[in-house]
Amino acid sequence: MPVGTQATVKSLRNEALEELGAQIILANTYHLYLRPGHELIRKLGGLHQFMSWNRAILTDSGGYQVFSLSELRKITDDGVRFRSHLDGSEHLLTPEKAAEIQLALGSDIAMVLDECIETPAPRAVAEAALKRTTAWARRARAYFHQRAQQNGELPQWQFGIVQGATFADLRRQSCQQLVELDFPGYAVGGLAVGEPHEITCEMAAEVTALLPQNKPRYLMGVGRPEQLADYLALGIDMMDCVLPSRAARHACIYTSEGRVLIKNKRYAEDQKPLDPTCSCSVCRRYTRAYLRHLFAAGEFTAAILATHHNIHFYLDLMRQIREAIGFGNLVNFASEVRARYVAGPA
Amino acid sequence: MPVGTQATVKSLRNEALEELGAQIILANTYHLYLRPGHELIRKLGGLHQFMSWNRAILTDSGGYQVFSLSELRKITDDGVRFRSHLDGSEHLLTPEKAAEIQLALGSDIAMVLDECIETPAPRAVAEAALKRTTAWARRARAYFHQRAQQNGELPQWQFGIVQGATFADLRRQSCQQLVELDFPGYAVGGLAVGEPHEITCEMAAEVTALLPQNKPRYLMGVGRPEQLADYLALGIDMMDCVLPSRAARHACIYTSEGRVLIKNKRYAEDQKPLDPTCSCSVCRRYTRAYLRHLFAAGEFTAAILATHHNIHFYLDLMRQIREAIGFGNLVNFASEVRARYVAGPA
Repeated sequence: MPVGTQATVKSLRNEALEELGAQIILANTYHLYLRPGHELIRKLGGLHQFMSWNRAILTDSGGYQVFSLSELRKITDDGVRFRSHLDGSEHLLTPEKAAEIQLALGSDIAMVLDECIETPAPRAVAEAALKRTTAWARRARAYFHQRAQQNGELPQWQFGIVQGATFADLRRQSCQQLVELDFPGYAVGGLAVGEPHEITCEMAAEVTALLPQNKPRYLMGVGRPEQLADYLALGIDMMDCVLPSRAARHACIYTSEGRVLIKNKRYAEDQKPLDPTCSCSVCRRYTRAYLRHLFAAGEFTAAILATHHNIHFYLDLMRQIREAIGFGNLVNFASEVRARYVAGPA
Repeated sequence: MPVGTQATVKSLRNEALEELGAQIILANTYHLYLRPGHELIRKLGGLHQFMSWNRAILTDSGGYQVFSLSELRKITDDGVRFRSHLDGSEHLLTPEKAAEIQLALGSDIAMVLDECIETPAPRAVAEAALKRTTAWARRARAYFHQRAQQNGELPQWQFGIVQGATFADLRRQSCQQLVELDFPGYAVGGLAVGEPHEITCEMAAEVTALLPQNKPRYLMGVGRPEQLADYLALGIDMMDCVLPSRAARHACIYTSEGRVLIKNKRYAEDQKPLDPTCSCSVCRRYTRAYLRHLFAAGEFTAAILATHHNIHFYLDLMRQIREAIGFGNLVNFASEVRARYVAGPA
């Protein structure tokens, strides 16, 4: 899922996302709650209508941004009190409120509020956070059911979020507790936040072994191109990541031959496309030399072209992975992709 | 002509310009000479190929930017010595060099080097600058002919530039001197640089009365929407202006009802298109409320959408003006357009 934090995937018109074949994007509840506000978006017909996007939207709960962006946050069993990073105004986010905001946004998939902790975390901290996360998940689920009873079936899926830091038994416990709440899908949070990739994979494996196979499993906030197939091989179905769009704005281009840092002088006269094997509309038309010039000159157009290509790269990689799965060839394909990137810069 | 200073119309892919029906864009010789350099662009097949733009390109001479952007400029009869605004490096721009750079760029229309002066200018200053401008035009024309003799017919038109500040007799003198040099087209420089609109029109009228009717007449660096029809009515055929794209980046939207400063709170819940009568792809899909949000959130996408619409507005206005000319109705149409903007903010 390309990330459209503030109701736009940075530097791309929706028309470009459609051309790229994006089926779903992620939007951030925290940002949209603070600006322009979920009540405004509700009034204007929901997020799909507000941003003119007819395909699927997943919203996070806002929790992660409260923990990473806001000031003076104070967590109690009730919820998390915080100050807006925009204007310092004070807000309280509870499991019910997070669910309510996402119903106002009208996203297709909503996340429950969870407690995000810094890693590596002592076991006691992870245990306490998990306990609260489970309690909040129960409240969020109850709120959702209550709203459904009042209003009839809601046009939204609510996902639980597995926590437990890097403790396998806590992760298993989290799975069991959430599965009892019978969510239509499950996210895995608190991973790929600095721990070694092997640990991420180990935890993902613990989790996918317990979560229902017939429901989507979503690993939040990953990942690098060489890691995507690994996660899929472990039974993950969905991912989101700012990397392709953020890297693009920093002139880092993903290609079938590895990363191309396009500002490098070696590309000044390079008339090849960004990726000679790529079929995206940027590679069909523009050269490395031109893109390098646009970045050197500080032109917005550079970000537009680079983002378009990088999102294509990710979505195309996912298409290739699905094809490999169809041919029963996923494990081989994963090592092939890993090999391409092993020598590249980060 | 939309302005693509650094080989891109800011915030627009070429695909968008094609969708908008742009037949020709302007690129800046000064900027492209300094970065990425005209020799690089020559080596890569010229500006059309470098930026992947198959329609027409007009380049200015670089003179105006030398006079407005660079430091430590020193003018002699030979040319103008200046320091780059990018790295302080020293350069000499002569009439021959300006022509040579533009041949390297391979633009379809090139401008001769002229001396740009600040206005209002004392008569003696204007006289001296005109004398030099005419001498430089002769040298530029001679250089162009010489290159054509060496290489066969050049795939480029060279335009002379009429100067003379706000002195009608100097403007007439400039026309006569340039017409003797038999350029395939003529530009009018040094206008719309702060003098009242009536003076601009008066000077434009003096000039178009003398320049050949069967050759294009290009008024440089104009103008505001309400002025375009006026200039056309005076016999001007071509114009360029950064206004639509620059205003767009500053959240100023041109519409059939006047200017819309889209950041204004009154548009927060406005579900109308930017311009309800507009047929551009932005107005067909996005609302004022959404664009206001994108600007408030500091998203690049705001500039993309606003620029697209504003360029459409200008090109569509030109289409309407051509239609009015066809119906012999230009003067009425010009006052109609003027009335729309009379009450709007600048």
